[in-house]
Amino acid sequence: MATGKINVSVDNIFPLIKKFLYSDHEIFLRELISNATDATLKLKHLSSIGEAKVEYGNPIIEIKVDKEGKKLHIIDQGLGMTEEEIKKYINEVAFSGAEEFLDKYKDAGKDAGIIGHFGLGFYSAFMVADKVEIITKSFKDEPAVHWSCDGSPEFTIEKSEKEDRGTEIVLHIADDSTEFLEDGRITELLTKYNKFMPIPIKFGTKTETLPKPEGAKEEDPAPTQEVDNIINNPNPAWTKQPADLKDEDYKSFYRELYPMQFEEPLFHIHLNVDYPFNLTGILYFPKLTNDLSVQRDKIQLYQNQVFVTDNVEGIVPEFLTMLRGVIDSPDIPLNVSRSYLQADGAVKKISSYITRKVADKLSSLFKNNREEFESKWNDIKIVIEYGMLSEEKFFEKADKFALFPTVDGKFYTFDEMKEALKDKQTDKDDKLVVLYASDKEAQHSYIEAAKNKGYEVLLMDSPIISHLMQKLETSKENISFARVDADHLDNLIKKDDTQISKLSDEEKESLKTKLEEVITDKGYTIQLEAMDSDSAPFIITEPEFMRRMKEMQQTGGGGMFGMGNMPEMYNLIVNTNNELVGEILNTKTAKKRERLINQSLDLARLSKGLLKGEELTNFIKRSYEMVK
Amino acid sequence: MATGKINVSVDNIFPLIKKFLYSDHEIFLRELISNATDATLKLKHLSSIGEAKVEYGNPIIEIKVDKEGKKLHIIDQGLGMTEEEIKKYINEVAFSGAEEFLDKYKDAGKDAGIIGHFGLGFYSAFMVADKVEIITKSFKDEPAVHWSCDGSPEFTIEKSEKEDRGTEIVLHIADDSTEFLEDGRITELLTKYNKFMPIPIKFGTKTETLPKPEGAKEEDPAPTQEVDNIINNPNPAWTKQPADLKDEDYKSFYRELYPMQFEEPLFHIHLNVDYPFNLTGILYFPKLTNDLSVQRDKIQLYQNQVFVTDNVEGIVPEFLTMLRGVIDSPDIPLNVSRSYLQADGAVKKISSYITRKVADKLSSLFKNNREEFESKWNDIKIVIEYGMLSEEKFFEKADKFALFPTVDGKFYTFDEMKEALKDKQTDKDDKLVVLYASDKEAQHSYIEAAKNKGYEVLLMDSPIISHLMQKLETSKENISFARVDADHLDNLIKKDDTQISKLSDEEKESLKTKLEEVITDKGYTIQLEAMDSDSAPFIITEPEFMRRMKEMQQTGGGGMFGMGNMPEMYNLIVNTNNELVGEILNTKTAKKRERLINQSLDLARLSKGLLKGEELTNFIKRSYEMVK
Repeated sequence: MATGKINVSVDNIFPLIKKFLYSDHEIFLRELISNATDATLKLKHLSSIGEAKVEYGNPIIEIKVDKEGKKLHIIDQGLGMTEEEIKKYINEVAFSGAEEFLDKYKDAGKDAGIIGHFGLGFYSAFMVADKVEIITKSFKDEPAVHWSCDGSPEFTIEKSEKEDRGTEIVLHIADDSTEFLEDGRITELLTKYNKFMPIPIKFGTKTETLPKPEGAKEEDPAPTQEVDNIINNPNPAWTKQPADLKDEDYKSFYRELYPMQFEEPLFHIHLNVDYPFNLTGILYFPKLTNDLSVQRDKIQLYQNQVFVTDNVEGIVPEFLTMLRGVIDSPDIPLNVSRSYLQADGAVKKISSYITRKVADKLSSLFKNNREEFESKWNDIKIVIEYGMLSEEKFFEKADKFALFPTVDGKFYTFDEMKEALKDKQTDKDDKLVVLYASDKEAQHSYIEAAKNKGYEVLLMDSPIISHLMQKLETSKENISFARVDADHLDNLIKKDDTQISKLSDEEKESLKTKLEEVITDKGYTIQLEAMDSDSAPFIITEPEFMRRMKEMQQTGGGGMFGMGNMPEMYNLIVNTNNELVGEILNTKTAKKRERLINQSLDLARLSKGLLKGEELTNFIKRSYEMVK
Repeated sequence: MATGKINVSVDNIFPLIKKFLYSDHEIFLRELISNATDATLKLKHLSSIGEAKVEYGNPIIEIKVDKEGKKLHIIDQGLGMTEEEIKKYINEVAFSGAEEFLDKYKDAGKDAGIIGHFGLGFYSAFMVADKVEIITKSFKDEPAVHWSCDGSPEFTIEKSEKEDRGTEIVLHIADDSTEFLEDGRITELLTKYNKFMPIPIKFGTKTETLPKPEGAKEEDPAPTQEVDNIINNPNPAWTKQPADLKDEDYKSFYRELYPMQFEEPLFHIHLNVDYPFNLTGILYFPKLTNDLSVQRDKIQLYQNQVFVTDNVEGIVPEFLTMLRGVIDSPDIPLNVSRSYLQADGAVKKISSYITRKVADKLSSLFKNNREEFESKWNDIKIVIEYGMLSEEKFFEKADKFALFPTVDGKFYTFDEMKEALKDKQTDKDDKLVVLYASDKEAQHSYIEAAKNKGYEVLLMDSPIISHLMQKLETSKENISFARVDADHLDNLIKKDDTQISKLSDEEKESLKTKLEEVITDKGYTIQLEAMDSDSAPFIITEPEFMRRMKEMQQTGGGGMFGMGNMPEMYNLIVNTNNELVGEILNTKTAKKRERLINQSLDLARLSKGLLKGEELTNFIKRSYEMVK
């Protein structure tokens, strides 16, 4: 047996970087600005503790595009490097043992501002440049240095005339990367990655209008001046303490994050935790519509104020990805697979921390200002209901504040609803039957009928509500939900008292035969019921179970396989106590009976939204005749 | 000035690989199977040209999971490596100059099956393993070798007892990657990346039922046998010549690609080109619904039968991302930014080649079997219409075969439509007015009215149809589109002849006053028109321009800014020649007049789908009274 050492000889690391390091070349600018920021912040620190005897001042980072010369400049006023430091940090690229490697470069980054948080920092310049120069003057009293490398591993190093402290990186942009010489592209990148970095970043200048001097005439133009165009806000709201922020500050930060968004957020949640992980951020509840798919990926993930991604899948619980805002945490591993992310201990803790904070905020809003909470319910319910379905811990908390609105605009919690309904809506088997509508307009006549009996009708119109009802029916005891048009009300809430039918059994038999003769081929199951005489003569109902299974299938899973495409099933309930039904039974001429039955059926279908197209046109024609 | 060479010392490349090489660790298996495949194919080639004096046979690649031992084995029957080759290709990791580096490793891959197409091949094993072994016997008459490395750069190498030709890679899976010891996870990866690789891949065994021997009794169980579980189809349809495939082969390949998809594709397009780029593939037109967002990302991109991604954004024109199928091309750069992809010459050519092939296929289907093309129109129109809007070249071709269906099920091309409609629907300014409906049911009474006048009504119900109409109106001459309920028909298609009103001007004035008294606060603009006496007394219309701008806003851009949220605007057209309107004018009692107006207005609103909720319930109650 022989042993040996794998001989990794890297004549030139740059092609490797260019080809494999990042799938997205555009991040080079983020890396270089991160380095510039670190170099500046480090100087601030050293001068504050007296280790750097320099005037810190108000340093900025400047980005310059030289389109003609095909160059991009990144200039900072930070620490700078001495010749010795250049040799140490730039000329030697050492990848040693595993942990050591990462630690070393992490520290190197802190010491000299060369390696960013995200990877190989400075070297990512070679993804877009075929030649890179560094012109740098250290804050220490040493001569400035000019380093240059053309992408081969050969470099040159010489003295420079640079007099100001700091580092200038010059990228000679390669032919396949000329997009990075366009002002628009650079602005796009700066806005995407650097909008909230802690040192002001200048890109060009802009013209500002000044106030007119006193005594100026109306026709005189207002004076203007050129000022630095600073593209970032170095002190974004999430880096401040909640106590220092007013409601207006949160709203204006929301506008900063989403300039194209005109609607204000409903409320915010300020995240701020040091232990056992470090996380700051602000989450916003926007007004949500029922279309779930378009509203994701609005939360932005930062690390130390540097934008990382707007895909927070695996970090934020799925039901909260509909929120907006910012999360900033150095403890979230980057560039790892989703399954790894989900198994990571810190990430799990972050995810459940966020869930808990959201639940607590909602709970306190509910307790402190119930009226306002109710007014916002419609815009936030989808998140809460989705959370109740997907996270058991959230369900336990939300069970106390999730609201059940009625069609009349009252709002119950689950317990309040049980209390309010129990007297009238408990059936003979001691089960509480909760009636609901999914559409106040479309189910109006059914809602009216229920209200006439003294029942409450909830308005449950979220896309996932069938799933939530299913969950409530199984996790709570003795409760069931039924839509108002699921059956005749006396069948939905079965009591011991029964209505007396005006018709004898023989009459009912005869009526059923006569109805079936006319209605035969329309697919309705006829069901005779003795109802109040002033209830409608004909009512079309749609059984709860089938309809709900169908809906659950259509809104992503649950229900029963294959039921999403089943046809609707309808029953026709005929009120044997209604005068018109008596007339149908007793009419002597078949033709008149047919007309009565058809017109009544059309009206019942109209009430359920089933009369359409040619049948509706014919109905309207007939009705015009009757008006005359 | 000093010069020097950047000293890249890589004691251990593996941590670097693990941390940065790929954001997704799972691809290690694709890399290793790619290597095994290359080693096998290369042996086939060498034996076919007589350079390898071996029996090629029917080699397979085997994957074995040893959950207890925390090991994953990848075993091939390919070339194998000699000790010298191990030393050359495994022990020396040399990154030299840019192009040289890439070329060298590309060739190394071909020579020895070590480096895959996608990157660092073999070394990606260290993303998931903390120790890797290679046990290999070359096809050359040399002893087998056992190489082992524990993730530090130290390796051991010794003789091995292996007797069969080929290479076995043993991964000792690291603690953070134990997911790759689950059969389910490995099956998932094999299915995702290796489903169509050219060498059979075995993962475990499965039980096959054999036919019963002759004379077996009915109660005897059928005999079974264990057979290799081959997870891939080494000869997928797209690698064959179109001439060798029947329609059924394309359909069965579709089922292979999308096993969860029950509907058959409508038709396929076989792509096959060598120059100026290499591309094979099969695209399918599935049945499409009008919900655009859910249907993307079904096309799979392969390189030499290895799955790469199902995100073909930038490669396939956007309007074709709704199709399904496979594209296989080694000429598409991987791991590059989207903007780079879009600027890449080869990719541009591929994209326009695909567009052209799709247009040609559609054109030939239209010409060869128009009836079938018409029957499929409804399922494919969304792609074609979207393409016409987004790609000018596609528009030019599709203009000849894009269809305009009528509500009666006829299908016109644009030119045929102009020809068919021009006699009756050209207005007095010589403009052709095309009438259309967006919903046959909801607009039924309006469609009937237009048909009664001898007009054709198109059925235009795609979500983006307003944009297409807008484009046709501007790119063609003297044509405009109007929905049937946009106005009174005589206003939509203005002719020179005018209808005579039964009412005098004073009577009209009086009628208008009486109508306004009742209708005052309902937001309708009243418009008196002399129409046929048997046209409806009241008709509600919705002006074309405003409605279309609104729709364009709602379906993604165009139209006028801010109009998406404008309220609907309706006009009430009153037919002064209708008998009922005469009655309204002449009725003496205000109460009866009010009842006539309200009932007529309700019927007009019902016809336009505007009578809802409480108003509908009340209307139905009134109507039941009238039935009796």
